[in-house]
Amino acid sequence: MKRLMFVVLCLFLSGFMGCGEQPEEVVVDPVDFAIAIHGGAGTIDREMDPELEKAYRKALEDALRFGHGLLEQGATSLDVVEQVVRRLEDDELFNAGKGAVFTHEGRNELDAAIMDGATRGCGSVTGVTTVKNPITLARAVMEASPHVFFTGAGAEVFAEKMGLEKVEPEYFFNQRRWDSLQKVLEREADRESDTEKHGTVGCVALDRNGHLAAATSTGGMTNKRFGRVGDVPVIGAGTYADDATAAISCTGHGEQFIRNTVASRVSAIMEYQGATLAEAAQRVIGDVLQPGDGGLIAVGWDGAIALQFNTEGMYRGAADSSGRFEVAIWD
Amino acid sequence: MKRLMFVVLCLFLSGFMGCGEQPEEVVVDPVDFAIAIHGGAGTIDREMDPELEKAYRKALEDALRFGHGLLEQGATSLDVVEQVVRRLEDDELFNAGKGAVFTHEGRNELDAAIMDGATRGCGSVTGVTTVKNPITLARAVMEASPHVFFTGAGAEVFAEKMGLEKVEPEYFFNQRRWDSLQKVLEREADRESDTEKHGTVGCVALDRNGHLAAATSTGGMTNKRFGRVGDVPVIGAGTYADDATAAISCTGHGEQFIRNTVASRVSAIMEYQGATLAEAAQRVIGDVLQPGDGGLIAVGWDGAIALQFNTEGMYRGAADSSGRFEVAIWD
Repeated sequence: MKRLMFVVLCLFLSGFMGCGEQPEEVVVDPVDFAIAIHGGAGTIDREMDPELEKAYRKALEDALRFGHGLLEQGATSLDVVEQVVRRLEDDELFNAGKGAVFTHEGRNELDAAIMDGATRGCGSVTGVTTVKNPITLARAVMEASPHVFFTGAGAEVFAEKMGLEKVEPEYFFNQRRWDSLQKVLEREADRESDTEKHGTVGCVALDRNGHLAAATSTGGMTNKRFGRVGDVPVIGAGTYADDATAAISCTGHGEQFIRNTVASRVSAIMEYQGATLAEAAQRVIGDVLQPGDGGLIAVGWDGAIALQFNTEGMYRGAADSSGRFEVAIWD
Repeated sequence: MKRLMFVVLCLFLSGFMGCGEQPEEVVVDPVDFAIAIHGGAGTIDREMDPELEKAYRKALEDALRFGHGLLEQGATSLDVVEQVVRRLEDDELFNAGKGAVFTHEGRNELDAAIMDGATRGCGSVTGVTTVKNPITLARAVMEASPHVFFTGAGAEVFAEKMGLEKVEPEYFFNQRRWDSLQKVLEREADRESDTEKHGTVGCVALDRNGHLAAATSTGGMTNKRFGRVGDVPVIGAGTYADDATAAISCTGHGEQFIRNTVASRVSAIMEYQGATLAEAAQRVIGDVLQPGDGGLIAVGWDGAIALQFNTEGMYRGAADSSGRFEVAIWD
């Protein structure tokens, strides 16, 4: 309905703006589908090893192309965001699933959340240690349980019941992340600990039926304390979707995203002030948050895409049915 | 600043409305402080045993008078909401602390959250089993940790470090709640399980310095599955506070409060549409939620109080510096 009104409004405005003379071309082409992905925001070294940069760009491109292809074939946004995030979870480059960072105690504790814009149904898990793809567990919580949020051992028991693929905790071991914890621990000893490694992966999508969905997954924060929960599984903070407004997935300093209810705030500014997605995203990342806090990706009900961050960089990609296809790391 | 503008506006309107004749009395008296409490919303039997009803009313009155007294003496809203909720946690009548309901597995798992409207600082815990007053642990998370949200065993370790009062899990045993679980379990066997017991306690307050705070605590839901998290520790869902708008504490069907980000939605409608607290609370409970979902208490920046619910009843109380003092259960 909203999309129809948008088209009518565009036609009206096109006519109005061209009044008195025939406009050369009336282009009214809201996109059929759209997708955005992220692989974390933060201080990303611009002097990154060229091979590593190439690997990141390729991983983002592959994931984006995969999701774009699914949407083109008519897949639902819910299936697409889950499948794309699974792929990013399986990739050691990103802080989620296989590439998760280590807690202070040297464990990998995974969080994930998914939300369906059509129903505002949602599912979240936190503190998962043996489920290969936490995003699929979050979806099972949404679809196969009367609850929406499970923690730790309870989440694992539920995963078992649902027959999801389990792995030994060692599956998540990653030398690069382990070394990163050791460095942070050493710096802590020197009272110089100030860097937080808070990568996340996420995907948002609008499908051909006009439905939105958002998914986010993370290994948390290097050196986080046992049992700490960030913004990812907190619906409204790191993840939110509503067909009437937008689907949003965040990445950054989780505590800031929780206390400012970042994801649902973008939706609220659109819903209650009639702002565009671009305006809403800009205001939340630029005005509500502090420089360095993080970023978000979002797709609006009309297929608009926002990729907004106030950090040095954000691994990201965006594509839609109009032929747009881009991947970037820095500004 | 906002309060000053409010006073100026009142003076202006008073003058305008009385134009042409001298108004008998220009009463411009925004309250100095205000407080509201709740002890859960839901299907509350109107044919309740008179002794039990009396006990509930007395407990609400005592807690309200206690909080009112603290505010009168100049206590901060943050201290008041914590202290009042501690008192309700210690009372077996309410589903929080000592009166917590049982999970499906026959355990007591406690959740709590607190938020400071002055800074939007917040703290949450979920799955606590040995901390006598979870709300005090939530405050410790807010004030003494770099994080804002802790789960289960991690939360207990943190409580230990902070030297909070611990109890044996048996401390939370309560015959009435145990019998309630048995009844629900029997009904489940008969495939008739439909009743959810989802009580909560909460307190919101505006102090003499114009600062708002909110606190919520719960034992969860009778027969909930191990590890399930409801809306209470989800900042923005069950608890929210912002000095610019309102302090809100919710009670009801947690999943509905999470997916609709109820507490922060009330604040967003005020912030982004300029609605009054009464309008915002009415719209969220009346239009966004479904009948039977639950209710909320809120205090606005100007001392306005909202007690809104779409269930049969809500244990509640409200008081302010103008002499208002009321306790109620049904309409």
